[in-house]
Amino acid sequence: MKIRIAKNSGFCFGVKRAIKMAEDASKKYNEIVTLGSIIHNPQMVKKLEQQGIHKVNSLSEIKGRPTIIRSHGVEKNTFNKLLEQNIEIVDTTCPYVSKTQEYTQLLGKAGYQVIILGDKNHPEVIALQSYSDGNTIVVKDASELPDKKFDKVGVISQTTRNIEDLQNLTRELLPRCRELRIMNTICNATSIRQKATLELAKESDLMIVIGGRNSSNTKMLAKISGKYIKTHHIEVAEEIDKKWFKNVENIGITAGASTPDWIIVEVYNKIIEYLGNHEKKISKIEDIPGLRSKDER
Amino acid sequence: MKIRIAKNSGFCFGVKRAIKMAEDASKKYNEIVTLGSIIHNPQMVKKLEQQGIHKVNSLSEIKGRPTIIRSHGVEKNTFNKLLEQNIEIVDTTCPYVSKTQEYTQLLGKAGYQVIILGDKNHPEVIALQSYSDGNTIVVKDASELPDKKFDKVGVISQTTRNIEDLQNLTRELLPRCRELRIMNTICNATSIRQKATLELAKESDLMIVIGGRNSSNTKMLAKISGKYIKTHHIEVAEEIDKKWFKNVENIGITAGASTPDWIIVEVYNKIIEYLGNHEKKISKIEDIPGLRSKDER
Repeated sequence: MKIRIAKNSGFCFGVKRAIKMAEDASKKYNEIVTLGSIIHNPQMVKKLEQQGIHKVNSLSEIKGRPTIIRSHGVEKNTFNKLLEQNIEIVDTTCPYVSKTQEYTQLLGKAGYQVIILGDKNHPEVIALQSYSDGNTIVVKDASELPDKKFDKVGVISQTTRNIEDLQNLTRELLPRCRELRIMNTICNATSIRQKATLELAKESDLMIVIGGRNSSNTKMLAKISGKYIKTHHIEVAEEIDKKWFKNVENIGITAGASTPDWIIVEVYNKIIEYLGNHEKKISKIEDIPGLRSKDER
Repeated sequence: MKIRIAKNSGFCFGVKRAIKMAEDASKKYNEIVTLGSIIHNPQMVKKLEQQGIHKVNSLSEIKGRPTIIRSHGVEKNTFNKLLEQNIEIVDTTCPYVSKTQEYTQLLGKAGYQVIILGDKNHPEVIALQSYSDGNTIVVKDASELPDKKFDKVGVISQTTRNIEDLQNLTRELLPRCRELRIMNTICNATSIRQKATLELAKESDLMIVIGGRNSSNTKMLAKISGKYIKTHHIEVAEEIDKKWFKNVENIGITAGASTPDWIIVEVYNKIIEYLGNHEKKISKIEDIPGLRSKDER
């Protein structure tokens, strides 16, 4: 039996940055809130709550307190309202997401029909849409495209989609428009993590994908892995079922960009426990065999 | 035995326009030349020669005479030199090709790495390249792309390529660049003619593609048809071999955008002759059974 973890699993640059900013701010201010979940990991959000960072769901709940903008960004109007109300803002919007917002605005202003590849209910996409002045179309894949011709189309991708969906969307759009301008806004960390997950899935008999159930990038990892091999998407170690490991030789683990290391360690130890190897439990993620360096995560 | 002709076969708008302009000019001037072949059909070029429109191959051969710019366009420098020398110009560059030249210039000026999908030896592509200020890359398909990453890429297509090649090129480029701006410059007449040829090829046992051997759009028709069924690319009726029709039930004919009607009629009659149906010969293209209206060509 071999347990391996995909390279580049866990926190990405943007999530690390957002949490650091939130924790620093919580030391500076007596009371601070986040407008929506700062990242899509309920366990991490709960941990931040214990540090005094409270989640609110609407502007009216803020009541003048300093406010953290989530890593996924917020709608343009929301941001402007916070400014108007002189609310202290800690903007943890991932810089790659900010760039995507800028591109959306640029394409909208330049008269392109903006088409966003993404999940229309995801906060990143809801915020993105607000940056295009014109009407935007959001599609989860090429099959959702309206059956019509366009003149100039600008394509933006939610940062956590996969390149194959973007390629398929482009293939469908190309014969239908005179000009197609695609901003490849899939973030590099996302691509690398997806590639590493795919490679590990191909060499495993079972894959465990760890991350928030509403985390777009984690769901994408589960989708990619699930195409090759039996895959379980879990949030915490307690969800693991001992039966999963029957007749399994190679177990692969991967984790979304908002999954903290301690949860990955708990999952690893739970598997070790079920396999009856208590002495092989680990205390930090670097001890997972086969994970050669921190850079690989 | 059934002989059918693909809809939209023969002269396109750009070719009709170029020939009309050349013939009108030949009436106006005592002597007139074309710089290169006005269209890629040797038989039509010969006919124009008989009307006093002489082909020259270089600027030095013009010797001050009024000059017709070919439908494929010429290099920017060549055009400018004609202007400097006060040569009378009859510019028959297809308006769709002119538009493609404009887009190339626009993308080059805006700092894009311009990539042209096309045949690097074709006059249209040679002229196109001259409109980009930066370095252009010309590829016949995705396999010829250099193995490197790009920042901003602008893609232009030779007007007579097919959409599938453009889609494949885009698929390959997308993961390699931050921004991909594609001008779908495949001309509509080309797409329609390719589609009609494909449909007829699927229903035929043998296809005859008529057009100049150096005609890019004709070669593309032969390539598309040849994927489905035995296909012969010919320029004139004399090339037809009686043996081709042995055990053949459905014969399909299609013709490139620079193939004159009289050649299509000759080819049709030659086939009729070989099949022993002399009485069914026709005198004009409209008499081909199944060709419902002139609009369909």
